[in-house]
Amino acid sequence: MLEVCLSPNLIDLYELEGKNVVVVDIFRATTSMISALANGVSSITPIGNLEECRKMSQFGYITAGERDGAKAIGFELGNSPLSYLDRKYIGKKIAMTTTNGTTAIEKSKVKAENVLIGAFINLSATVSFLKKYPKDALIVCAGWKGKFNLEDSLFAGALVSYLSDAFRIECDAAIACKNLFEANSSDLRRIISYASHTKRLQNQNIEDDIEFCLNLDLYKIIGVLRGSEIVAEN
Amino acid sequence: MLEVCLSPNLIDLYELEGKNVVVVDIFRATTSMISALANGVSSITPIGNLEECRKMSQFGYITAGERDGAKAIGFELGNSPLSYLDRKYIGKKIAMTTTNGTTAIEKSKVKAENVLIGAFINLSATVSFLKKYPKDALIVCAGWKGKFNLEDSLFAGALVSYLSDAFRIECDAAIACKNLFEANSSDLRRIISYASHTKRLQNQNIEDDIEFCLNLDLYKIIGVLRGSEIVAEN
Repeated sequence: MLEVCLSPNLIDLYELEGKNVVVVDIFRATTSMISALANGVSSITPIGNLEECRKMSQFGYITAGERDGAKAIGFELGNSPLSYLDRKYIGKKIAMTTTNGTTAIEKSKVKAENVLIGAFINLSATVSFLKKYPKDALIVCAGWKGKFNLEDSLFAGALVSYLSDAFRIECDAAIACKNLFEANSSDLRRIISYASHTKRLQNQNIEDDIEFCLNLDLYKIIGVLRGSEIVAEN
Repeated sequence: MLEVCLSPNLIDLYELEGKNVVVVDIFRATTSMISALANGVSSITPIGNLEECRKMSQFGYITAGERDGAKAIGFELGNSPLSYLDRKYIGKKIAMTTTNGTTAIEKSKVKAENVLIGAFINLSATVSFLKKYPKDALIVCAGWKGKFNLEDSLFAGALVSYLSDAFRIECDAAIACKNLFEANSSDLRRIISYASHTKRLQNQNIEDDIEFCLNLDLYKIIGVLRGSEIVAEN
């Protein structure tokens, strides 16, 4: 069975026990995580609280912090997936806190069998993992401060679309996301240009981030939570 | 501005003050309400609590009660919009409680300027009202026990589609619902046949109800909450 939870605020309505849970925050937390891992970062520790995350620098972590779309004060990195492309952080551990993505991971990790990090840049790898270990799966969209957003639900729809031959799909949110993705798959950038978060990020001059986040299958790794750390696996 | 709230569980994230709020529970509460009013019922009092609603028969109300898709014990009527077509309840007051719809109304009525009852059977009348009194509007989908559902979001998408020339639309849920409706408007019945609630209702042999709920513009009235009663207006 494959389901989609459209907001972390609705997660209590879903059974997580024994499931593969895919957390999605396309703009930009989960894309940044996959970019970091694919470019040599050894692990990412997601942390909900800003202060707690900032303090991790004392323990040798590189800190990455974002609130309301902007880099948080006192952090080395913000939330851009481009920060990792020059492979400057090979072998480093990152402690990361973001407005929506890390909260969604916190809420998912308690009961799930596996927590995966989903992004367009590793879509096919994530699809393959979910097919190879066919447990029931739940896709959790991080949204924006509890509200539904377009980019995360489009990605959820892409996953549902590619997994629909391998899973039973009786969840209305999954059907709607699949329909939304399939109706727009030939031109994702067009519908994404209407998204509120695109406008929010455009105001901060990070069009390059958005463009990067919409690339398909740049990387072959999956990102998966092991203990308190997200690591790359093949 | 026009927004869509995909679940009553997310309603606290939205500003309701001074807005026209449209509550949607296509299968079947809001369709039943419009059917009742269009067929001569004088008012409908939505009541969240089953016991409290049942007791209203002592005060001369016809009671209508539904839980989990079935007629609740001790009620004269269930939740079928067909119950009113023989015009047996002309001039009567109905006290109604349903699994999702009445809760969504309870949550909306506290701060909204107007609470409207939305259904495909009076879609154009509702569109006209919202254009005539152009306050900011919020469409609240009743969903199923807090979860997103297809039929309510398709109706929300129809409203957004017909109102998109008159309102500013910056809400991702509104954009997604509009897209979902427009991609499926030529054959709503096809996508609705996949909906979990359709399957839930089919198990109870009420295909006729579903068919009725998908008719467009059977009636020209709107349903609007005045005090504690929903009444018909033109």
